[in-house]
Amino acid sequence: MGIRLGANRYGKAENRVVRIVRDTERHDIRDLTVSTSLRGDFEAAHVEGDQSAVLPTDTQKNTAFAYAKQYGVAPIEDYAQALGRRLLEATPAATGAHVRVEEHAWDRIFVGGDTWEGHDHAFVRRGGEVRTTEVDITREAATVVSGLCDLVVLKSTGSEFTGFLKDDYTTLPEADDRVLATSLTASWRWTGAALEGGLDWNAAYGEVRSSLLELFATTYSRALQETLWAMGRAVLERQPGIAEISFVAPNRHHQLVDLSPFGIANDGEVFIAADRPYGLIEATVTREDP
Amino acid sequence: MGIRLGANRYGKAENRVVRIVRDTERHDIRDLTVSTSLRGDFEAAHVEGDQSAVLPTDTQKNTAFAYAKQYGVAPIEDYAQALGRRLLEATPAATGAHVRVEEHAWDRIFVGGDTWEGHDHAFVRRGGEVRTTEVDITREAATVVSGLCDLVVLKSTGSEFTGFLKDDYTTLPEADDRVLATSLTASWRWTGAALEGGLDWNAAYGEVRSSLLELFATTYSRALQETLWAMGRAVLERQPGIAEISFVAPNRHHQLVDLSPFGIANDGEVFIAADRPYGLIEATVTREDP
Amino acid sequence: MGIRLGANRYGKAENRVVRIVRDTERHDIRDLTVSTSLRGDFEAAHVEGDQSAVLPTDTQKNTAFAYAKQYGVAPIEDYAQALGRRLLEATPAATGAHVRVEEHAWDRIFVGGDTWEGHDHAFVRRGGEVRTTEVDITREAATVVSGLCDLVVLKSTGSEFTGFLKDDYTTLPEADDRVLATSLTASWRWTGAALEGGLDWNAAYGEVRSSLLELFATTYSRALQETLWAMGRAVLERQPGIAEISFVAPNRHHQLVDLSPFGIANDGEVFIAADRPYGLIEATVTREDP
Amino acid sequence: MGIRLGANRYGKAENRVVRIVRDTERHDIRDLTVSTSLRGDFEAAHVEGDQSAVLPTDTQKNTAFAYAKQYGVAPIEDYAQALGRRLLEATPAATGAHVRVEEHAWDRIFVGGDTWEGHDHAFVRRGGEVRTTEVDITREAATVVSGLCDLVVLKSTGSEFTGFLKDDYTTLPEADDRVLATSLTASWRWTGAALEGGLDWNAAYGEVRSSLLELFATTYSRALQETLWAMGRAVLERQPGIAEISFVAPNRHHQLVDLSPFGIANDGEVFIAADRPYGLIEATVTREDP
Repeated sequence: MGIRLGANRYGKAENRVVRIVRDTERHDIRDLTVSTSLRGDFEAAHVEGDQSAVLPTDTQKNTAFAYAKQYGVAPIEDYAQALGRRLLEATPAATGAHVRVEEHAWDRIFVGGDTWEGHDHAFVRRGGEVRTTEVDITREAATVVSGLCDLVVLKSTGSEFTGFLKDDYTTLPEADDRVLATSLTASWRWTGAALEGGLDWNAAYGEVRSSLLELFATTYSRALQETLWAMGRAVLERQPGIAEISFVAPNRHHQLVDLSPFGIANDGEVFIAADRPYGLIEATVTREDP
Repeated sequence: MGIRLGANRYGKAENRVVRIVRDTERHDIRDLTVSTSLRGDFEAAHVEGDQSAVLPTDTQKNTAFAYAKQYGVAPIEDYAQALGRRLLEATPAATGAHVRVEEHAWDRIFVGGDTWEGHDHAFVRRGGEVRTTEVDITREAATVVSGLCDLVVLKSTGSEFTGFLKDDYTTLPEADDRVLATSLTASWRWTGAALEGGLDWNAAYGEVRSSLLELFATTYSRALQETLWAMGRAVLERQPGIAEISFVAPNRHHQLVDLSPFGIANDGEVFIAADRPYGLIEATVTREDP
Repeated sequence: MGIRLGANRYGKAENRVVRIVRDTERHDIRDLTVSTSLRGDFEAAHVEGDQSAVLPTDTQKNTAFAYAKQYGVAPIEDYAQALGRRLLEATPAATGAHVRVEEHAWDRIFVGGDTWEGHDHAFVRRGGEVRTTEVDITREAATVVSGLCDLVVLKSTGSEFTGFLKDDYTTLPEADDRVLATSLTASWRWTGAALEGGLDWNAAYGEVRSSLLELFATTYSRALQETLWAMGRAVLERQPGIAEISFVAPNRHHQLVDLSPFGIANDGEVFIAADRPYGLIEATVTREDP
Repeated sequence: MGIRLGANRYGKAENRVVRIVRDTERHDIRDLTVSTSLRGDFEAAHVEGDQSAVLPTDTQKNTAFAYAKQYGVAPIEDYAQALGRRLLEATPAATGAHVRVEEHAWDRIFVGGDTWEGHDHAFVRRGGEVRTTEVDITREAATVVSGLCDLVVLKSTGSEFTGFLKDDYTTLPEADDRVLATSLTASWRWTGAALEGGLDWNAAYGEVRSSLLELFATTYSRALQETLWAMGRAVLERQPGIAEISFVAPNRHHQLVDLSPFGIANDGEVFIAADRPYGLIEATVTREDP
């Protein structure tokens, strides 16, 4: 009656890879969460229970850890590509490998005295945003996306929301001065030319992050959508190697608290930060001829 | 230099809608998490800051709550379609509306005596899996996907993993008897014909859920992939109205604990349930001619 | 200048112990999260770095898993006592051992045909509340507390909140019919006499759970406090072996949604379930002469 | 049969108070999570359902927000004391009020040009540790505890764990060079004399945080216990106003990955960060004559 296997993939998710570089007394730390998957012709594994073409997820895990030593993990875009290529090469039935890496930043602890450059082997986790990469490798091509998530930003003024469409269910008053806040996820895809030309991934990451923050701060916002567009356009203008940038931006609502029952004015000073529901804005900014 | 807006959408996520039906003394409760979004021509909102075509996410929220009364929320597939149609209709610039609903089940509390049918207005949350639907509405068509998530199942035997591909990084021993466990997410898309013919959504949900559990239990598993295939095939065979079913199945590893240092045999009796990393298996089973 | 070590303890937290009982073809599963700690004279470990009196947390973990086989894990109150006694015995410097066990319930999968008693070795996680025990063992005595957490209950009527104290910051209107909901944590301490006399822990657990649900359902509630008192009193009246019962009850607020802007009446039918803030009510009910 | 109400308290938990200070164009942001509770003679509320002595949790919430404007929220120790005093004063039946405040730090966004001091009204959440205070107010006295949580620190060397007690269940090898990591919670109680004398809470917070980091970094650690002791002793030595400091320190295990099957040496370079189980070390360091 015509039933078949459709799209499928399998892998090992959330390997917590911590790499200490200790070639000298001044150590370095790289703290990653690594997920890999393979896709391709794995029909026999599903339909006949024949695993002979399946590289186990346990082997994928081993490779992620072994490559952390053999290949190194910095920058994560290079590590992810190397890992993806290896998994694809080791699995003839696979047509593609996907690798996602999250990097959790650490700072050196400062202890005063003669070590103001920070301690040699003691670190404090930075918190804040997580740097990410998603790499997709096929037999023919590689796609590299860099990004970040959990970059929480807020403007206490310079934001309005007015002139919107109204229907029978609209009660929201127009706001000519509001708090705008989001926990930003951004991911930017590099052009093939940029990949071929070679990239300073770490420098590029810092530049994109700075652009995002700067445009968030300096754009007068008539909606979170306008802010995302401004951020995306600036990144593409400044980074010719980036083909496209995508945003997922939950609107973290800050509701002005009504203090008037207590005879207290509240001109944008006291807010309750709401959990749910939240606005969720998603947008991609792209080159016309990528 | 040719930069333009790409794909974009916006909406209100995770509205916690609780609907009490109290037309008689015997109340009923429906507990939902509702997310909506709109997509279409919203370029002016991004590029020019012009919100005149944008139905606010706050209005989307209001509509979700108002429809819970005006239209009712059961079954969730009907509520989601009605809500999606309304949002699309209210927003001329939109080309599509997407609605996701999660339903959290409650049971009546049993208190003995003459109320063994369960209390009229006291409930206990069931836990276990969450029922879901994802509905997509355009000006031309509707797509309805039903599903569930967080259905945690385990087999203590009747599962092996042998004969797999090996490379230089493979250390996993073959296992001819292992624990197989997953937290299942499944989503099944209905055919257009089924939607037109009318469906008993609640009955269908129960039947699919039962099929999934039954096949998980009764399939001798040579890999989680084979189990997913068996579940998917059975659902499609039994439910002619379903065009396709997709699974996301994290392999919740249960590692046999080595008790031999203490002189204790451990023949599949004591396991440590691991958090991370985990295998992640994804597969779709589809009709050849959907 | 007089600085000393104060209270201290150490242990291994959240061992995920899964025990399969497979003496026959009809398996059973027990799924636990086990935390242990030791306290006593561990000053040398802190002040001098001398670990010779310290049983490693890794050994505590090993013992938890080994005892799952040697001693068994059901009922959890017995397992926790045995484990605590062992840890205390193995650690001369310790004056006390504390063991907390959470049990996550599973049901057999029903597959029809001749197995309507449920499958021999396939299980589905039940969800809902978690059964708990906290055992404290010293050289002289044992304290056993049984309990549960995450029992989420809701009444759609039969609850009011009126006549409360008002001050300048009070805006809450009186409510003569509201939704009352909580995610209940309850823990009940057994008398020494009950421990000596021997207990059917599983039966007692079922009885207490039923009493809690029944009283929640049948008590007309003038505040969550009154409901907790009614539940606690009933448990103590029905269970002579229980000396004391304590509750932690977050008040899960369900706010009536104002649908009047849309011309829709909302007589207790549509609510938004709020996340934060939440009321938090804690109370202990005790015997006067325990 | 002698059943009575024991210890009880009630309040509002996790008020998400965000305070924007905007007296000039250079705004400031304070982002708090505030929980309050009252205890005292509330027997009538429980036993008779009489709420006339109960200040609603909703009023406690209102007061937390109103005081954010009327009194200000910085430093959190002062705000918490003022809030606790107010709640106690407003509730004659109460004998004590407890207030917990968590402060989530934000940094100004730097945008270059003439604003290298950071933007006037755009902020990025810092992440990392959360500053805390717990204040307890009675009719007679006040107790103030300052603290922090989620300070994640790691040493890549300078840590051992050897010479520990061994029993039949011990398999842990001695480690003369290991990774030591924890997510630190610390809370320090101020002496009555310090409270009376007045304190620069912000400066003190910075000094204690620095001391904790410095001692973590510079203490050669023969166990996490020894590190906690060193941190606690240094804080008490340097801060005469602190009577006592308590730590909760989960030992975040980093397990060396065995790469030898692949012919790769791993001399402390590649680790897997484990989630559960984890060691949990708790200790208090106190003045002998506080």
